[in-house]
This record gives sequence, C-alpha cells and structure tokens, in this order.
Amino acid sequence: MEETDCVVLGAGVSGLTAAWELSQRGQSVQVLEARERVGGRTWSGVLEGAEVDWGGEWIGHGQPRVYALVEALGLHTFPTWDRGEKVLELRGRTSTYRGTIPWMAPWKLLQVQAGIWYLDALARRLSPEEPWAHARAVGWDATTLDAARRLFLWSADARGVMDAAMRTIFGAEAGELSLLHALAYIRSAGSLQNLIATEGGFQHDRLRGGAQALALALAAKLGEARVHLGRPVTEVRHDGSSVTVRDAIEGVWRARRAVCAVPLPLAARIAFEPQLPPLRTQLTERAYQGAAVKCFARYERAFWRERGLSGEAASADGFVSVTFDQCGEDGATPCLLAFVGGRSARTWHQRDPAERKAAVLDRLAAYFGPEARSPTAWGEADWCAERWSGGGPIALFPTGTLSTHGPALREPCGRIHWAGTETARACMGFIEGAVEAGQRAAEEILQAG
Amino acid sequence: MEETDCVVLGAGVSGLTAAWELSQRGQSVQVLEARERVGGRTWSGVLEGAEVDWGGEWIGHGQPRVYALVEALGLHTFPTWDRGEKVLELRGRTSTYRGTIPWMAPWKLLQVQAGIWYLDALARRLSPEEPWAHARAVGWDATTLDAARRLFLWSADARGVMDAAMRTIFGAEAGELSLLHALAYIRSAGSLQNLIATEGGFQHDRLRGGAQALALALAAKLGEARVHLGRPVTEVRHDGSSVTVRDAIEGVWRARRAVCAVPLPLAARIAFEPQLPPLRTQLTERAYQGAAVKCFARYERAFWRERGLSGEAASADGFVSVTFDQCGEDGATPCLLAFVGGRSARTWHQRDPAERKAAVLDRLAAYFGPEARSPTAWGEADWCAERWSGGGPIALFPTGTLSTHGPALREPCGRIHWAGTETARACMGFIEGAVEAGQRAAEEILQAG
Repeated sequence: MEETDCVVLGAGVSGLTAAWELSQRGQSVQVLEARERVGGRTWSGVLEGAEVDWGGEWIGHGQPRVYALVEALGLHTFPTWDRGEKVLELRGRTSTYRGTIPWMAPWKLLQVQAGIWYLDALARRLSPEEPWAHARAVGWDATTLDAARRLFLWSADARGVMDAAMRTIFGAEAGELSLLHALAYIRSAGSLQNLIATEGGFQHDRLRGGAQALALALAAKLGEARVHLGRPVTEVRHDGSSVTVRDAIEGVWRARRAVCAVPLPLAARIAFEPQLPPLRTQLTERAYQGAAVKCFARYERAFWRERGLSGEAASADGFVSVTFDQCGEDGATPCLLAFVGGRSARTWHQRDPAERKAAVLDRLAAYFGPEARSPTAWGEADWCAERWSGGGPIALFPTGTLSTHGPALREPCGRIHWAGTETARACMGFIEGAVEAGQRAAEEILQAG
Repeated sequence: MEETDCVVLGAGVSGLTAAWELSQRGQSVQVLEARERVGGRTWSGVLEGAEVDWGGEWIGHGQPRVYALVEALGLHTFPTWDRGEKVLELRGRTSTYRGTIPWMAPWKLLQVQAGIWYLDALARRLSPEEPWAHARAVGWDATTLDAARRLFLWSADARGVMDAAMRTIFGAEAGELSLLHALAYIRSAGSLQNLIATEGGFQHDRLRGGAQALALALAAKLGEARVHLGRPVTEVRHDGSSVTVRDAIEGVWRARRAVCAVPLPLAARIAFEPQLPPLRTQLTERAYQGAAVKCFARYERAFWRERGLSGEAASADGFVSVTFDQCGEDGATPCLLAFVGGRSARTWHQRDPAERKAAVLDRLAAYFGPEARSPTAWGEADWCAERWSGGGPIALFPTGTLSTHGPALREPCGRIHWAGTETARACMGFIEGAVEAGQRAAEEILQAG
C-alpha cells in the first residue's frame, strides 16, 4: 500500500494541475487515471500528418491561468485561423458574413443582438463564484433557455442561430439547458461574446502539438512514478484522518487527502465509504455530460481559403452545428473540423458510419465547395462513447439543480476535495477552468495543512 | 460460481416479480440485492405498535396487476382512511374542504380545474408505451412544467396547490419537471385525478402489514437459496451467450440472461463490460431520483378524526406538502403521516433533527389541532440518504431526455433486460408499474428462449 499526502483521481488538466501544484509545494502525490492516457477531455492526435484535437482545443482572451501554465511548461500557442468570410446555413440555404454574428434580415439580426445583450445583462447580475445565491436564481432555474428565449426571440431563424451556438458550447439543445446554468456559464466566461468569438474570444488560440500537450507536459514533470494509467478508481474509504482509494486492478492507495477530478457525473461510478452527504450524491446523480462529436476531414488543398472563406460555418439546421479551419500552424496540413452537438450527437452511434460521414461531407461541400466531398483522410471522436468522459464538452445541470445543489459543487466532503472544470470559479467548462479548479483544490489542501 | 437461467439485480417489487414469474415458468433464477432487506422503495416498519410504510404505500383503482398479485400471495388490503374534511394551507392560512380539489376563490378554483383538464387533455394524446413518439414530444420536452403552466395558471395560489401535488407525486418542484415527463406520467396513470385522489384513485388502498409485504411474500416463495441480501452488484460482463455478474463481496454469478431492476440512476454504479450503448448510458446518467421524506407521528388518540377531519392536508407553502391519516386498519394505532417532497426534502439532512421535527409538528398542529405537537413517538425516512435508492419516490428525466432517450428505457442491451417501475408501460412510478415491468422483463426472457 502506497502512502502519500494526496491522491488525485483523474489525470485530466484539472487533476494534473492540482497534483503539480501540490508537488511544487512539497507534498507527495499519486495520480490515478482510468484511461491509458492522460488529458481527459483534451486528447490530441494526428490525421495524415495533421495535428488534430479530438477534444478540447482552444484557449483565449480572459484566460490568464492557462497562458501562464503554457509558458511555465515551455509550450507554444498559435492563433486560430480566422481570416476570410464565414458561412451561415439557415433552412438549407447558405450565405456568407464577417465578424461574430451572421448576417440576417435586419429585424432578425436585431433580435439576435438584443438576445445576446439581454442574456449578458442577466448574467452580469450573478456572482461568478455563487450564481445560486442570486435572489432570482430559483426562478431562472425553473425554466429552460428555450422556454425563456421565446419571450424575446420571436424569429425561428434567430433561435436557430442561437441553437448552433448552444449545441457547440454546451453539447445540448436550448431545451435541455436550465436558464440559470446558461447564465452562470456566460457569467463565468465574462460574456456570451467571449464564448462564441474566435479572434479576441475563447477560440483565439490553439496549442502547438494540440491541447493535450498541457497534460502530457504536466505528467512528464510529475514523472511515471506518480502518474498511474489504466487505474479506474472503484472505492474511496475516508474518515477523519485519511483516505484509502482502491482501483480496479487491486491497487490500494492511502493518503491524507484526495482530490476527485473526474468528470462530475462519473463520480457516481465510485463507491464512497461512508457515503457522501445526500446533496453531493444528488448533484452527481443529476449532472450529466453534453453530447459532442468532432469530425475531421483532411484535404490536399485548403480550397476554402483559396475562395476567401475562413473555414468557419454555423448551421441552424441541426446536423453539423459549426465548422472550423483545422489546418496546421503554417497551413501546411489542410483540414476542416465539423462539430456535431446536442440532439444529432446523442444518437451518432446509431447511424451507419459511412452514412454519417457522407452527411457531414455533404454539409462541408455546401459551405465550402464540392472539393469537400473528397477528403484524403477522415477521423471522428464521439465523446458519448468515451467511457471515461461519458459525453462532452461539459457537464450540464438539469433545471432545479444549480439553484439547490450549487453549494455542494466545491464543498469538500471531509478529506475529499473537488476539482474538474465544472467546479471552476472562472471559465467553468474550459481548459482555463480546469486549471483554476485544480489550483483551488490544491490551495484548499495546503490551507488545511 | 453459480450457473442459472437468469440473474436478477435488485429485490424490489419489480425484480422479485420478474424472478417469480421466471421461476413459475420453469427457469432457474438468482436474485442479488444490495440491501439487507428486500422491497426496494417499499419498506414497512412499526412505530410504537403502528404499522408504517417508510416508502411506497398505496395501491388503487386502475391497477389490476398488483391486486392480482396481492390475491395470489394471500395478502389483504384495506381502504385508506378518507372520511372527514381535508385541510388546505395557502400563504400561512388554513381552510377545510371535501373532495379532491381544495376550495379557493372561484376564479382560482376554475384555473385549477382548467389546468387539470388541460394537462389531462394533452396527456391523452400520448401513447402510454411510447410518449416520445408524439409529434410534439420534442417541444414538450424542451420546457418545464413550471414554465408551461404559467401560460394557463395565472394565480400564484393555483400554482401553489399544484406544487403540493407535484412535490408529492414526483418529489420535485414544477420547475424540475420536463412537461413531457409530467404528461407521460399522467398518461401512464390514466389521469391526473387518479394520481391525486384517495378514494377511487391511486391512494385508495393500503396493504395489511405494509406494502413491503408484497416483496417479503415473493421472496419467501422464492426462498433463501434464491434471494441473496447484502450483495451490491459491481460488475456485469456480458457477451452473446451469457452474463457474468460480480458482487461487492466477491460473489460471481453466471446466467444466460440478466434483469437489471435497480433504480434507473443507480445502474451508473455498475461497471458493464463491454460498456452499454451510449444512449443507454446517457439515459442512466441523466435520470435522477426525486427527493422525498416521510415523517410519522404517533398519538394516543386520533384527535383529528374526532374533529371531523380526515387527516389529509395539502400545503402550498412548501415545507410539508401533504399529510395523511396513517392509523392502523381498525383505527387502533393513531398516527399521522407528513410527506416532505422536492426542495425541502433535498436539504432535509442539513437541518437539525430536533428543528425539523418541530417544524413538521408545527404544521400538523396548524392543520389538526394543538395535540399534534405532542406525539408519543416520531419516525422519519429520508429517501435521499438511502444509498440504494438515492431518493424517491421515482426517477425523473431532465428536459430533453425522454424525447430522445425514451426508446432506450426498455430496449434490452444484448442479454441484459430492464425492469423497475420507471420502465413500466402503465402506472409508471407506482407499485403497479413495478409489477408490470417485472412481468414484461420476464416475458421478454421467456420469448427469447
């Protein structure tokens, strides 16, 4: 049996950040990871020579912690390609636009702008740390974003444009989102504009080598003796003096404290002895992961760039929600990313692989030209089928949850502390949030002594 | 290693019904139960000589299967006490009424009646077996009952009366409920009237010895050699020819098929190898249990009956939602039941036990007289703290779930079949539904041969 100061469950960015912080401050740590790789929802690969991010990918303005970590680890960023016109698909027809908001008939455009303004204005009233503490939190948590927006977004096209954004940001339909959760998420990001913008927003930069480079570098610093792969945790026994963690291959790890940095809903798979307080258990049971699929198509030429198109498209029609240029830093490895989120992503695995590939390529051809139908390579990542994520990009809170169970999000349960981007006090849901949460959990443990 | 035709996970009414059906039809079965008792969400006890049901309690009209089972097992029912006036609490003031719907100002009463009529009318359009198949299912699933009812229930008092019902039926606030789930539940019950009525409704009868008598009798018929307590299942390995189940005390059970009859969200605690299809895993992750607490106060005299009160009260004010007379069959053991559901129940465990007891007795005194403050015995069951239920009375589906994930509810995953009242095609959520689901799962296995 190993004995350490802290055992960390989950070697995503948040868990590794916590472990690295603790180890920098003189604590002994052991990190247990279910998968055979580190990185959690960041996972990078190569598709015919092109670096692709199967999972979380971007970092951007207003995210100081992750940029500091990038620098500390000696990593490098490069700007997301954002030059050229963007494409909007609305009821089967495409048009091009520049900037963040697609062009539509002026009265619809006005609604979209007013909708963004209104949601931002509501969001600003929330505390980013405790959105559940607002006097109207219970009311905002009793309705969905879809039901709420019908009061100010009368145009189906305006709602459709918002749907493309929501499917991408949350991996969910507007009808799945608690209005309070949506507002808290906007607040945590600073603004809705931050969430949707590339240049100057949260999609501003990519990481050289892919976003998983962060976790790989942290794990390398910690060393193989402290990061243990292929060890899903099955049981956590805890009392007033220590924590004993059992993994699925019969490893037993004893520590003074634990950081649980697995995706929020997946803590349900761990038997805590004694069981956690009901409010925490309920939070775990209620949270669920959104649904997201990332598809990549490699080409010989970046034909969209040649046509003056940025490679960004947004579709209100619900199959592909957005696309991005995914070429390498120098543009040398032409690649497009198609993001499928929400309803289409949930049932992705039920579609025939050839049929779903053809359906995506069909949309790419509609946006960027017929060359899109003939990629030289194809890759896809269905996050709903990822056992140790259970979906993506983030955990969602059903209506009536954040207002009641919010206080349980970060509240330590005895010697068990909580990390993971969903527990972040800023940029919740992003890599930045994962870093913030990991640092905060480490700080709690250091303070507890 | 044991080898049988079927292994059943969970010895609640549904699992035991399935096991009993299969064994009656010549199949060998083994039932594994996490708790040290059978019955699941039915659990009966004695409070100073009074039989009390800590969990599910009533059966009623329109529930033929459970009455047939009662008869087959040689059990007996008796009618729920329903004589006398009922009490309504609204904004701190109490009034009395007769019948099912409390008396209010006529225009409010009209709204409540119209609201019931409207919800019933919508519900009747759904198929009880496949509510997700309706053309408007996606839209009804994109809003909460609270947001939807504001379009026809303008009176806060009318909404308050509905809240008392919803907290009791679902263990949830109206803002937690998907409109589609609420409608499907009403449809499955036949009508909202069935759900809320005592005489002639689903609260018509109680079971002599308590509702757990059903599970106890089924377990007795199966015998100790076939019902194994204290064995939470941790792993289910399955392939094209068999199922291998591992429990937490190292038992290994091999069978041709399995019935999973644990509460829907609790299947998340079991490692399925290979993992289940994403749609099923998502359904498990998304469903969560409502929040319910049952409190019992024993008295020397049934002072409420002496005053011409039935012991039934409904409160729109949100702490206690409803109360019932819980005297024994002959009235010999005076007892009141106070039901706490939804928001108040979720944080029940955080309240001081003496303070919460006093708060409930204070409401009982307001409804039935000052004698209520001095019970001779007190008991409470917080279902949120029940590890192997995770809440009660039933599992809820967040908005956007039933419309997409509904088809996964009963769809067998290879050799794993699904029971539990949430999978019922009629009276979902009730003991009747548990029986129906158990019989249906057994039938599936017999058909599969």
